[in-house]
Amino acid sequence: MSDIHFELAATDGAARTGILRTPRGEVRTPAFMPVGTGGTVKAMLPQSVRETGADILLGNTYHLMLRPGAERIARLGGLHKFMDWQQPILTDSGGFQVMSLSSLRKITEEGVRFQSHIDGHTEFLSPERAMEIQRLLGSDIQMVLDECPAFGASEDEIEKSLALSMRWARRSKTAFGDQPDHACFGIVQGGVFPHLRMRSAVALQEIGFDGYAVGGLAVGEGQAAMFETLEATVPHLPSDRPRYLMGVGKPDDIVGAVLRGVDMFDCVLPTRSGRNGQAFTWDGPLNLKNARHAEDPEPLDPTCGCPACRQFSRAYLHHTVKAGEIIAAMLLTWHNLTFYQDLMEGLRTAIAEQKIAAHVPAFIAQYQKGRTETAA
Amino acid sequence: MSDIHFELAATDGAARTGILRTPRGEVRTPAFMPVGTGGTVKAMLPQSVRETGADILLGNTYHLMLRPGAERIARLGGLHKFMDWQQPILTDSGGFQVMSLSSLRKITEEGVRFQSHIDGHTEFLSPERAMEIQRLLGSDIQMVLDECPAFGASEDEIEKSLALSMRWARRSKTAFGDQPDHACFGIVQGGVFPHLRMRSAVALQEIGFDGYAVGGLAVGEGQAAMFETLEATVPHLPSDRPRYLMGVGKPDDIVGAVLRGVDMFDCVLPTRSGRNGQAFTWDGPLNLKNARHAEDPEPLDPTCGCPACRQFSRAYLHHTVKAGEIIAAMLLTWHNLTFYQDLMEGLRTAIAEQKIAAHVPAFIAQYQKGRTETAA
Repeated sequence: MSDIHFELAATDGAARTGILRTPRGEVRTPAFMPVGTGGTVKAMLPQSVRETGADILLGNTYHLMLRPGAERIARLGGLHKFMDWQQPILTDSGGFQVMSLSSLRKITEEGVRFQSHIDGHTEFLSPERAMEIQRLLGSDIQMVLDECPAFGASEDEIEKSLALSMRWARRSKTAFGDQPDHACFGIVQGGVFPHLRMRSAVALQEIGFDGYAVGGLAVGEGQAAMFETLEATVPHLPSDRPRYLMGVGKPDDIVGAVLRGVDMFDCVLPTRSGRNGQAFTWDGPLNLKNARHAEDPEPLDPTCGCPACRQFSRAYLHHTVKAGEIIAAMLLTWHNLTFYQDLMEGLRTAIAEQKIAAHVPAFIAQYQKGRTETAA
Repeated sequence: MSDIHFELAATDGAARTGILRTPRGEVRTPAFMPVGTGGTVKAMLPQSVRETGADILLGNTYHLMLRPGAERIARLGGLHKFMDWQQPILTDSGGFQVMSLSSLRKITEEGVRFQSHIDGHTEFLSPERAMEIQRLLGSDIQMVLDECPAFGASEDEIEKSLALSMRWARRSKTAFGDQPDHACFGIVQGGVFPHLRMRSAVALQEIGFDGYAVGGLAVGEGQAAMFETLEATVPHLPSDRPRYLMGVGKPDDIVGAVLRGVDMFDCVLPTRSGRNGQAFTWDGPLNLKNARHAEDPEPLDPTCGCPACRQFSRAYLHHTVKAGEIIAAMLLTWHNLTFYQDLMEGLRTAIAEQKIAAHVPAFIAQYQKGRTETAA
């Protein structure tokens, strides 16, 4: 067993709040993990990410293995030291990015051969290599290598892919070996097919993991299908281990998944949107490029504590977005990550106070009403 | 007279140290002013600029008049509030950028008509409009509009341009009017011709300004010609007013100009270089793109207090520069501005301690020796 322990503090319906204790610090759940793709949460200093309330970051095995390389990061003292983030880091296994970013993929029982999207050189990723890379990085929570079928694959294709992913999960766990300070999470696959999701959840528990992720969602199936798949999956996962919904998502996706018992999330949306002039607010998302902000002296959100809201007007954000200034990316990323962390804090508090049933509809109503006004 | 006072604290040869007192705070001289072109020092939050030791920023009239517009900034409460910088701001008059950035310029006695480099619309800048814009911005130190002849212009052309600039200087001062909380600086022109520089310095003093800038240098004439021109100009300026060398420069340019009696500087070099992977160090400039930094665990400069040096390795800076990450621009800009402020602090201390004659050659020797090693 790992030195990483998950302690449930309260449940409210299927929703849970708790603490994932690690040697590098505590992760309050439900947790949102900002994405630090290539050793940086884009446009943020690490201390600023911490100030938003983030307890844990996600790092991408695919990006880091290609540049600057896992062995190099290991020689430099590991990913935490390299990027100056001392709290926990979860790394994915690279499987998803191999499918979405690289070219000329060839999948065999052994692993996947692919070409780097950066310079075209050929790389090979097996379950054993994926775990080796994550160990070299010093990742606190390491994910098994899985195969990620494209959305729209047939049930037969999904079933075959799932079988391969389960064999790879076993090899990944064996390769992870005995690392008491670190955790290894399995990944449930199975598309939108309840019986395949259940089969996957059971197969992973036979191997035994420190936590269970739900993969293969948020790939185009839509929110309703995602929620239905969660409802068919989460009940088959052990209640004493954290549950992580990979790559999700929009604020209302996260809220709905928390209601269905998910504990951990990651998504590029707050950071990527921040670089594109979009801000999340309790009244829905805003596009700062819109001319109606050009002379608005009000802050983005008067209740928010981030520098964008405390120090600047919407007019300033509009100006710097339009002018392509780096400070626009810095401020809107900071704001969006603060919004996401405040969203999670609100969910944790509501669960602890047994108010989630009232909290969620109130959030959704305000968020979607604002969105309508923005579109007008 | 203005509520802005310049107090000389010490001189050492021609070099001077003092304090420019303004209602918005004190500016320690010799001073370096980071450039906040379009309402932001690129890749920096304003509090971070302050942390580097900057007492004053420069804003560009040309950029701000085109986007977001001076009247808009005035309606939003002025430039200090807009960009959240509460210390003094000096604005240029736009003359230099009209020459270097816009197209289809037509100069008449009245002013200059030009096309915006952003969207091609036609604008007109006269001495009166340049001062009106700076007043709308709320600039603490406002510069007269001058004509900036291209490097290589003949003596005859320079003489005619100078005469126009002196007529514009008088109109600018009249338009500045009575603003006791603000200062108006004249600009000495005259190319590299000592008698024209002297004529310009005398003409400006007949009008009477709160400070005197030296313009039209650092346009390609080379360091030796620039220093010779300073030697022919500075002695004709009053000793009780600050002297500002516009658009300068490299660290060794600044050091040489301080030796010749200059008090204030501005330049895009530390910020622009920071966005291009170049770092200033006491051992000369470094290009972080260079592969020799790829696995270097040492900080950029172990004596520097900026986040790039305190938190990260050269290897990390190399990686993020190569990957085009925004954090590279943020960190290297912060470092370079810190270097420039530390450079100025060293000069101020050396002058106060009457050690400038030893301080400068020691700086130059280390800086240029390092540069040679870097090139090897």
